[in-house]
Amino acid sequence: MTEQEIKNLVGRVVDSVINDGNITLEAANALIEKVKAKAEEIGVKAVVAVADASANPVSVQCMDGAFIASYDIAFNKAYTVTALKMPTTTLSKLAAPGGSLYGIQFTNQGRIVIFGGGVPLYNKNGQLVGGLGVSGGSESEDTFLAEYGAEVFSKGN
Amino acid sequence: MTEQEIKNLVGRVVDSVINDGNITLEAANALIEKVKAKAEEIGVKAVVAVADASANPVSVQCMDGAFIASYDIAFNKAYTVTALKMPTTTLSKLAAPGGSLYGIQFTNQGRIVIFGGGVPLYNKNGQLVGGLGVSGGSESEDTFLAEYGAEVFSKGN
Amino acid sequence: MTEQEIKNLVGRVVDSVINDGNITLEAANALIEKVKAKAEEIGVKAVVAVADASANPVSVQCMDGAFIASYDIAFNKAYTVTALKMPTTTLSKLAAPGGSLYGIQFTNQGRIVIFGGGVPLYNKNGQLVGGLGVSGGSESEDTFLAEYGAEVFSKGN
Amino acid sequence: MTEQEIKNLVGRVVDSVINDGNITLEAANALIEKVKAKAEEIGVKAVVAVADASANPVSVQCMDGAFIASYDIAFNKAYTVTALKMPTTTLSKLAAPGGSLYGIQFTNQGRIVIFGGGVPLYNKNGQLVGGLGVSGGSESEDTFLAEYGAEVFSKGN
Repeated sequence: MTEQEIKNLVGRVVDSVINDGNITLEAANALIEKVKAKAEEIGVKAVVAVADASANPVSVQCMDGAFIASYDIAFNKAYTVTALKMPTTTLSKLAAPGGSLYGIQFTNQGRIVIFGGGVPLYNKNGQLVGGLGVSGGSESEDTFLAEYGAEVFSKGN
Repeated sequence: MTEQEIKNLVGRVVDSVINDGNITLEAANALIEKVKAKAEEIGVKAVVAVADASANPVSVQCMDGAFIASYDIAFNKAYTVTALKMPTTTLSKLAAPGGSLYGIQFTNQGRIVIFGGGVPLYNKNGQLVGGLGVSGGSESEDTFLAEYGAEVFSKGN
Repeated sequence: MTEQEIKNLVGRVVDSVINDGNITLEAANALIEKVKAKAEEIGVKAVVAVADASANPVSVQCMDGAFIASYDIAFNKAYTVTALKMPTTTLSKLAAPGGSLYGIQFTNQGRIVIFGGGVPLYNKNGQLVGGLGVSGGSESEDTFLAEYGAEVFSKGN
Repeated sequence: MTEQEIKNLVGRVVDSVINDGNITLEAANALIEKVKAKAEEIGVKAVVAVADASANPVSVQCMDGAFIASYDIAFNKAYTVTALKMPTTTLSKLAAPGGSLYGIQFTNQGRIVIFGGGVPLYNKNGQLVGGLGVSGGSESEDTFLAEYGAEVFSKGN
């Protein structure tokens, strides 16, 4: 074991003790604040959702005037990325007609979202601690906001 | 029209212009912060949900270690109280076996909650602007927290 | 902190590192073997399900000739006891007409089971690591088998 | 009737008497053990599910660290292959846009899976006795594991 590996392991242990390796509500809300601020900056009224590493919801917030449909979409994006451990943009290619996972969008009670706007969240030790789902803008805006959130999160946590 | 009625009407018009008579995300989150603080004070790990006047979700937050089942329950309490414009404690009596609404718990795709912890939210002009759902403690703890939230809200908004 | 508390904390840390504080498939299957053996002994054809601490399924096994309906029931019992952190016999009283949680059986997409046969699983450090659901016999047989399983598990893990 | 046909018929009668022509839990679990061992060998954390000839579940096991989404997918693959009596790779072509069964993925309450990883199980007399569903790796890994399982099973049962 290298010193870094030991350090990572210790980091994971500490995380586990604090909240079983899951993102806390405090961290989720702090992240959502940042994503909402960025959404406002680019003129998007978004729903921003965070799930924990078990794909259970932690916090979901709907900016004023956001699409009503965006609640389920953001919520399910956060589920999808933790339940499958990949961004929805990656899944998008696999689940397209002709892709190797075409049809996965129908298998999990309608909870699998296959377009951009969902990203797994890793802490600074590289451990999956949750997922972020954004819905409200165009697919590229949602993807931009989700990736922005994941980047901000990986630095701070 | 009395002066008070006119004042209320003007207040409602102003609210409507600002956010269609709905609770804003900012107000919902401020309320949730207060309910979480009170929950922590009495030792309850709660999920706290706010719906708008259209019974659509605004913000749902899960305190660390809250029951996993509490997400759906809190969410559905917030839905129930705006969709039916009454606290879930009132509905509880009506929906009990022998009550005039017995059976309402089976309609609406399982979204109607008939035990305490959900309260409608009125602004200071007496207008329904949303609903609050709390789940995580005993029924009386959830009811206490929801009523605390409604009272705090009615004063401040 | 007492020495025992420190020991428990260390135990939890080790558990967390191994499998994020969740029951492993190996432990779940070993438990299911014991419950199946006991079921056979008392002449019950049971479905035995184990969920992890996040209420996600780990292993579900249907003894030959078990009721087809028992799959969903056992599966949902395992969900219920981890999602609410109580045995289904306790919930049974709270969710009966007149009970403080009457109606909870309708709130979580039909996943809350309110009769006996589900028990939370704790490891020897007292940490919730999953849930056990048994269905196939009478309510008292299912309860007996679930409680037998929980006791066996708490000793061995 | 040829001697082989008579032998097969007798074999089927014997099977039917024993367990209605269905795979037993013991056989299902033995098969799952082999598939899990192979999955571990190729570095996949899989969910492995076996359904009986009636498309009802027999055993579902989730390897530690498997995707949360894989439970439903493996479960539904096992359902699909017995409910339609074909491997999901065959269905994949028929259900693709332009295929003769395009749209089948939207029927059956989302239980039809149309990508690789599901295979029907036949006993050594050529009778359909159940289905195997594997989820957790790439589509080709899941297909490999399912076909490996079906081959192992057809030899031993």
